[in-house]
Amino acid sequence: MSGTAVSRPGPGRPRDPRADAAILTAAVDLFVERGLARTSIEAIARRAGVAKATVYKRWSTKEDLLAEAIERARDDIPALDEQDPDVPPAELIEAMLPRWGAALADPRYRALTARLLGAGPDHPALLDIYWNHHVVPRRERARAVLRRAQEAGALDADADLDMLIDMLLGAMIHHLVLEPGSSRPDDHAAYLRRLLRQAGLAIGAGVSPAQRS
Amino acid sequence: MSGTAVSRPGPGRPRDPRADAAILTAAVDLFVERGLARTSIEAIARRAGVAKATVYKRWSTKEDLLAEAIERARDDIPALDEQDPDVPPAELIEAMLPRWGAALADPRYRALTARLLGAGPDHPALLDIYWNHHVVPRRERARAVLRRAQEAGALDADADLDMLIDMLLGAMIHHLVLEPGSSRPDDHAAYLRRLLRQAGLAIGAGVSPAQRS
Repeated sequence: MSGTAVSRPGPGRPRDPRADAAILTAAVDLFVERGLARTSIEAIARRAGVAKATVYKRWSTKEDLLAEAIERARDDIPALDEQDPDVPPAELIEAMLPRWGAALADPRYRALTARLLGAGPDHPALLDIYWNHHVVPRRERARAVLRRAQEAGALDADADLDMLIDMLLGAMIHHLVLEPGSSRPDDHAAYLRRLLRQAGLAIGAGVSPAQRS
Repeated sequence: MSGTAVSRPGPGRPRDPRADAAILTAAVDLFVERGLARTSIEAIARRAGVAKATVYKRWSTKEDLLAEAIERARDDIPALDEQDPDVPPAELIEAMLPRWGAALADPRYRALTARLLGAGPDHPALLDIYWNHHVVPRRERARAVLRRAQEAGALDADADLDMLIDMLLGAMIHHLVLEPGSSRPDDHAAYLRRLLRQAGLAIGAGVSPAQRS
């Protein structure tokens, strides 16, 4: 890491992208394994194989580092962002189901969600950063797709979209954190299909794994 | 506590109800303040003003003790259990809104929920006990009321009740743990009313606090 040790201080300092990636990976791994209270900058540096000073050059608190690390890990979850306006919104959502099912079946994603929700009482700043940087933009994209669904007649024109998004995200959190989990992506995709149908979205009933086998 | 120190071992041993109450209160207080990882039987005994042995006489692990303590604390939340079958189900639910609003406005309830969800990765047994003892019976009561609402024509006869309950509980968890909280019970009651209406339950729109002021 000595190659990055230039004298200029602060955020203008050149970064070593490999070190940054190793630090972000170590941070989210430790957070998933241990939770925030037992994840220190020192432990993150050790796991990443860099000096503590290398971490502090880029992040001043572990909350800032973890917020960025969690955001990156969450970015692996496919979002409704690459939208083709010619695709009907219900089809667009339906096409995402296998990928979302795979995300929900991942025990790491489950643990990350539980850790994040549990961090609120001790580390409200972490939850605030996550909410503002990650959740708010995704809610806006979801709202845009649901509004398109309303215009296309695939969702009740009177639906309270903000409340509907709370119900959809809430059911997913409930399913992920509280319900005994299946490791089969298909089961989770089938759950999401039931959820979207109960939410009033006009998508097909699909074939349940039970019917198929 | 020496009065309870009889020689008979195990669960048949007479209990000191005041000591039990003090232990359960201390356990839930410490859990809310610190989380499970930093709540030991020793700290609970110290806070309750009893000997560690007094705690171990009744509970063999801190997970068992905390599960019972959390259940008791959660029991303060009014449940849909004292049902008068002559009251229409939508009215029954509507009548609970002020009390549920007060529960959601309580920062202690918010912290308890976050701690409980966050305990999953390290203490799955705690979440399992909570799920089986607390959540499952409440879900069954909610399902019975929603089925009555279907029969009374106050809810779509085709509604997927289990999914609807996931959506209702999920939105409440999302609202409680992730959304910036208001301390006004009225705001939370208004949120619940919007939630129930979007869920398809035929209850009145109410008067929003904004309209009232």
